[in-house]
Amino acid sequence: MRSFTRYLWFNTAKKRELINITGECEDFLRESGVREGLMLVSAMHITAGVWVNDNEPGILADAMELLENLAPEGPDYRHHRTGEVNGHAHLKNLLTHNQVVLPITDGELDFGPWQTVFYAEFDGMRRKRVLLKIIGE
Amino acid sequence: MRSFTRYLWFNTAKKRELINITGECEDFLRESGVREGLMLVSAMHITAGVWVNDNEPGILADAMELLENLAPEGPDYRHHRTGEVNGHAHLKNLLTHNQVVLPITDGELDFGPWQTVFYAEFDGMRRKRVLLKIIGE
Amino acid sequence: MRSFTRYLWFNTAKKRELINITGECEDFLRESGVREGLMLVSAMHITAGVWVNDNEPGILADAMELLENLAPEGPDYRHHRTGEVNGHAHLKNLLTHNQVVLPITDGELDFGPWQTVFYAEFDGMRRKRVLLKIIGE
Repeated sequence: MRSFTRYLWFNTAKKRELINITGECEDFLRESGVREGLMLVSAMHITAGVWVNDNEPGILADAMELLENLAPEGPDYRHHRTGEVNGHAHLKNLLTHNQVVLPITDGELDFGPWQTVFYAEFDGMRRKRVLLKIIGE
Repeated sequence: MRSFTRYLWFNTAKKRELINITGECEDFLRESGVREGLMLVSAMHITAGVWVNDNEPGILADAMELLENLAPEGPDYRHHRTGEVNGHAHLKNLLTHNQVVLPITDGELDFGPWQTVFYAEFDGMRRKRVLLKIIGE
Repeated sequence: MRSFTRYLWFNTAKKRELINITGECEDFLRESGVREGLMLVSAMHITAGVWVNDNEPGILADAMELLENLAPEGPDYRHHRTGEVNGHAHLKNLLTHNQVVLPITDGELDFGPWQTVFYAEFDGMRRKRVLLKIIGE
């Protein structure tokens, strides 16, 4: 079994952004030379998520609106007694999950036709990381 | 490390269905001969989920009702400007996640007493796939 | 590839609890001697979740309140026709997911600064288990 680790750094211009990282995942896979295995894609912060969905601007805006409806930004979270103001971002992370595991088959990400990997930043404008980890042969 | 890949095809009779795929996962594991490792079960489409929960019809209906309340089918998604009508299914996928990783111990799925794997179709009546990938020894 | 399995048992004093299990995961990793790989942390019951978030009491209470708002405890679930009263706990599990996969790099959990692993009990006061499974070298 071989193992490869890479860290992607982000410092978004806006507080909330959805960034397509499929290309970075594919580049990393190609450079590793792994033909069969798994790639973990996991945010290293607790106010950002990672998900696989469609790369279509409308649905991305719909997704962010849904999350805002379920866990709205606002002043009334208990978390804010610590001085923080990003309670909503923690809760959006909880609802969307902070990671996906991508299948690697025959040297490629084994994706269906519309699958795209997104980094979902809910509290940006600071340096944050996503970990990519391949295990396989 | 050994690796095995299988694709399960679905073409549901209804737009929404919950299909117990535990037997297919167990068959695949047995045929692989793997004794220790992990099995990734991941939908290859962005309008279907995979989850582990109880195989009890009441809770399955409750789950679908909850998802309908949180991300209702309807005409008003931005995604529909593309001509699509399945915005709700993308959002249900986002909320339930499109994959699980199953532990393999001693040649069996290492499950608790009630754990059952479901394919959750939110936009069916078309051919769609789930990927099963085992890595282990 | 080497593989190690451990079961953590819980019998919480209250129906709902959030338990930091990061130390148990780290102990298990150290004892395994694995330097590179993945650790699956997966609840073996369908009324408990596992998540990675901040170990700050305010946000933990906010998270439980959010889940109670989305899937409230109450009498009206179809699941209760079976005699059960824990429909809400199944649905909270569905929304938070029952597992995470932790990256192992250089013999340590490869975590960002605030990442903490929690066992989220939604229907406690009974013996329940979480599975830890390491695969790696």
